Amino acid sequence: MSMQRILEEIRDEVRPLLHQGTIASYIPELASVPPERFGMAVHTVDGKVFAVGDAGLRFSIQSISKLFTLTLAMQLDGDDLWARVGREPSGNAFNSLVQLEYENGKPRNPFINAGALVVTDVILSHLDNAIETLRDIVRALSGEPTIDFDLAVARSEQATGHRNKAMAYFLKSFQNLDNDPEKVLDAYFHHCSLAMSCHELCQASLFLANYGVAPVSGDFIMTTNQVKYINSLMLTSGTYDAVGDFAYRVGLPSKSGVGGGIVAVMPGQFSVCVWSPGLDASGNSLVGTKALEIFTTKTGISIF
Amino acid sequence: MSMQRILEEIRDEVRPLLHQGTIASYIPELASVPPERFGMAVHTVDGKVFAVGDAGLRFSIQSISKLFTLTLAMQLDGDDLWARVGREPSGNAFNSLVQLEYENGKPRNPFINAGALVVTDVILSHLDNAIETLRDIVRALSGEPTIDFDLAVARSEQATGHRNKAMAYFLKSFQNLDNDPEKVLDAYFHHCSLAMSCHELCQASLFLANYGVAPVSGDFIMTTNQVKYINSLMLTSGTYDAVGDFAYRVGLPSKSGVGGGIVAVMPGQFSVCVWSPGLDASGNSLVGTKALEIFTTKTGISIF
Amino acid sequence: MSMQRILEEIRDEVRPLLHQGTIASYIPELASVPPERFGMAVHTVDGKVFAVGDAGLRFSIQSISKLFTLTLAMQLDGDDLWARVGREPSGNAFNSLVQLEYENGKPRNPFINAGALVVTDVILSHLDNAIETLRDIVRALSGEPTIDFDLAVARSEQATGHRNKAMAYFLKSFQNLDNDPEKVLDAYFHHCSLAMSCHELCQASLFLANYGVAPVSGDFIMTTNQVKYINSLMLTSGTYDAVGDFAYRVGLPSKSGVGGGIVAVMPGQFSVCVWSPGLDASGNSLVGTKALEIFTTKTGISIF
Amino acid sequence: MSMQRILEEIRDEVRPLLHQGTIASYIPELASVPPERFGMAVHTVDGKVFAVGDAGLRFSIQSISKLFTLTLAMQLDGDDLWARVGREPSGNAFNSLVQLEYENGKPRNPFINAGALVVTDVILSHLDNAIETLRDIVRALSGEPTIDFDLAVARSEQATGHRNKAMAYFLKSFQNLDNDPEKVLDAYFHHCSLAMSCHELCQASLFLANYGVAPVSGDFIMTTNQVKYINSLMLTSGTYDAVGDFAYRVGLPSKSGVGGGIVAVMPGQFSVCVWSPGLDASGNSLVGTKALEIFTTKTGISIF
Repeated sequence: MSMQRILEEIRDEVRPLLHQGTIASYIPELASVPPERFGMAVHTVDGKVFAVGDAGLRFSIQSISKLFTLTLAMQLDGDDLWARVGREPSGNAFNSLVQLEYENGKPRNPFINAGALVVTDVILSHLDNAIETLRDIVRALSGEPTIDFDLAVARSEQATGHRNKAMAYFLKSFQNLDNDPEKVLDAYFHHCSLAMSCHELCQASLFLANYGVAPVSGDFIMTTNQVKYINSLMLTSGTYDAVGDFAYRVGLPSKSGVGGGIVAVMPGQFSVCVWSPGLDASGNSLVGTKALEIFTTKTGISIF
Repeated sequence: MSMQRILEEIRDEVRPLLHQGTIASYIPELASVPPERFGMAVHTVDGKVFAVGDAGLRFSIQSISKLFTLTLAMQLDGDDLWARVGREPSGNAFNSLVQLEYENGKPRNPFINAGALVVTDVILSHLDNAIETLRDIVRALSGEPTIDFDLAVARSEQATGHRNKAMAYFLKSFQNLDNDPEKVLDAYFHHCSLAMSCHELCQASLFLANYGVAPVSGDFIMTTNQVKYINSLMLTSGTYDAVGDFAYRVGLPSKSGVGGGIVAVMPGQFSVCVWSPGLDASGNSLVGTKALEIFTTKTGISIF
Repeated sequence: MSMQRILEEIRDEVRPLLHQGTIASYIPELASVPPERFGMAVHTVDGKVFAVGDAGLRFSIQSISKLFTLTLAMQLDGDDLWARVGREPSGNAFNSLVQLEYENGKPRNPFINAGALVVTDVILSHLDNAIETLRDIVRALSGEPTIDFDLAVARSEQATGHRNKAMAYFLKSFQNLDNDPEKVLDAYFHHCSLAMSCHELCQASLFLANYGVAPVSGDFIMTTNQVKYINSLMLTSGTYDAVGDFAYRVGLPSKSGVGGGIVAVMPGQFSVCVWSPGLDASGNSLVGTKALEIFTTKTGISIF
Repeated sequence: MSMQRILEEIRDEVRPLLHQGTIASYIPELASVPPERFGMAVHTVDGKVFAVGDAGLRFSIQSISKLFTLTLAMQLDGDDLWARVGREPSGNAFNSLVQLEYENGKPRNPFINAGALVVTDVILSHLDNAIETLRDIVRALSGEPTIDFDLAVARSEQATGHRNKAMAYFLKSFQNLDNDPEKVLDAYFHHCSLAMSCHELCQASLFLANYGVAPVSGDFIMTTNQVKYINSLMLTSGTYDAVGDFAYRVGLPSKSGVGGGIVAVMPGQFSVCVWSPGLDASGNSLVGTKALEIFTTKTGISIF
């Protein structure tokens, strides 16, 4: 069966589930997204593109941005990063302060919020215009110069993000932020507010399926080993507190966001992105997870 | 043996211990207090006063201020307060965020920092000039109109209090602060910065030993039942994570602060205040705790 | 108003609450106790006795036995005991293994189950017939040679006490039990199964209100300081996870059991015991707690 | 470079590290293994075999047995198993009771000790001679009828396994064991005591690299989906509290044991087993982990 046909079957199979998830409602910009949105795209390393549904519509990538901030921090800081943030699954809710306290301010991994704040802090210490640099990298990776922050989203996150604020000051109290917590939070909320489509996210993450080289431009983004590191982190820590279940059902390194997007990669072959705004109890797109599960079952392709 | 003689014996017995504690060093104003400072005063409900050493010198009362903010909040809010803060010992470090998370943002008691922030928030919601009102109450209770905040201390706390900031935003994320966290922190740090002497603290807390009536002025401060509540909270939660050991050794309702002060009351009889800046591992004055232990042993007076 | 009259008023006031509590149901012997049982007795240090209701009926004292095992262990082991068990409130459910793990196998205090197992282990290491010795002490203290274990209760606890078994082996894994865990559990379950009446419990604990001397026999049980220690432990740790609320409402050092009994003491004056089998959410007798609250309010007597 | 040559290079490179690990010392049988032991074998799905060092010597497979008990339980119980044990990384030490308490007796995954006890309980409920059946399956998978339990090891584990006993009774207290805890522990300790060589473990786990079919016999062991499940569990939970770091460095689904063995699989290609008794701080073979890291680096083969 062709890849395009598989995507179409998935689209039809998940349709009855579109209203079962819960749309993130803590800020108005996310709450107003229509629940019936669904898009899915596959980009292969040799240039083929497949898609169904709203794969060209932009949505708030939220925590998927942590993939790109981690990439940038690894480029800037190399292995020094791991002195300040761990590489282990959290075994706890993604925004838990508990673990941070028991482990003396060293976040378990770069994909929980506390870890992403430390990663953002690293970037700020290296760059004068960290916010824009991250955006420019994402534009370059995806080849879409119009990608931008959704400033209304960033402002709303600022106004409601008390727990992230608590986390930033808590990290500061452990001396694990070098910059002013308010500045770190500002950059963090900007990054999370990036609006991108499934196609753009596939393209931007395709270097992770291609051993570190961006296939279209031929640009070297990072070493094969560094890509292996990021992919393994996605597998063990990329989908909040459901990584085990996700690996079990989907079996691909993946990173999700509360905007309802999920990016996954199959090393050597392709990247795949799915978007549907309704979330399951773990904060992952309910339909997106199901779509990826069907995808790996129908194609027989997974890393396991 | 006379009370005065007992205090003099205590002063002599604790002298060799004066350099064994650790002076709080997180702000310069506390760090610079000479370790050999020691004062102790006893004020009885029938007007007798006994003292030794530096009982007339002012020091930073820090967490002892929680006694007075709780008194004010109980006057303003009555039993509504207990919907937002518990009355149980914490069983954890006084500034732990862990417990707050497991218990969904309701601090265990008004004497841990999180609880004191909620108490401060209650006061702010009732009064326009909460900071000054608290100071005026303490002035009236002690009969000393010159008592005031140490603004250098308050400013230093602001600059270094990342963990308290984290706590305030965390409480806000659970909707357990009504006011702006920054405003709550400002009031909180002001209250903690009050500078008072052993004599002034004895006088200000004497209503707790006199069933709610300030002995000198005859002012009714709170009901006998409310006093009983505060005294029981002091016993079960007033000395950080050492309340059990403290009750065991001293056996009086007590409230301590990192400035090295401890206030204790014997219902129906007296209040006693001791000050020595060196702290033990629990954050209580090392010599102060020892002095109170000797005091209850020599006098044979305790609530047990 | 006379003490007898106060007890009668309490009996009348609590009657409407008798069916509101939940009777412990994990073993059939406790589950079958009629919910309308209510007894209350006061024994003063100068020999007066007051009582209402079922004050002469025996019930399963359960955790109240921890008072007597602690007394015995302090007689046998002195202060060495505190190297193996702490004196701090637990801040957690009374049978939590969590705290034990975080604190490397040293229970927080002798009144949580883990602590009582260590106390029992201490007794076993000193005595050949620890089970009987404890019973004989309770008989002597209360002057009632017919007090005995309820072997059906002890057997049922053995059969269902999986969590206590887990606790014992966990303590053993931290080398904080010297004896075979099965032997420790056997002694522990026997002690908990003691059947006593309110009158007998008042009499047996009266030395705690009399500075260490049993008033009737004149026997010296322990030093004034040791009594102070036990009373302070009762206040800070005697009523499961509700010690703060209990101190706040009742204001007397107290020890409760899931059989519905509560023993309290007023130093220098009296011991009081109340029994009603329905429990509140914390595991304390619902009516018993209320009765003691009314008692301290009507008499105006509390330690605070 | 040939696979054989790669193994030889690894052997030479890790030699200086052989004395850096810590040999498990809680039972004499493990403590007495010479630290310089090192073996490594690779078996491919198309029948090739490569090996260096002590690849033919048997050692105590310990937790690697959890792979085989899980396989058997999935054959017997299908997806019902997941109602009683989760599939998420633990984020805590492998023998933590804390998590079990917070999650009401449902272990996080089948590879932590609590989870393996539940898996063992499932097997016991289905089979009369569960202990022998498991051994027979391992014999059949590896084609080695002489594989057997080391009864001295099993007895020593019984005698010292207080924490596992605590765990079993704790599970029982949550009604998550159907059988007598002692019987479950007996089976568990037997399974852990299996003695096997690197060659035998490679052969026995080769079906995990071959989509569920044992390559030599052609026997169908489980479905492709079930194999995918086990491999994903190995990746997210197979190496104690170091899974993130292990995925990062090695990048293969792996299961380790405190006997110093590690089994890993590359889906579609091969299984690899390494043994060296010295452990790192996480309880994984120090040299074994290093050997696998060099192996995936030199071959360029990993799932990421």
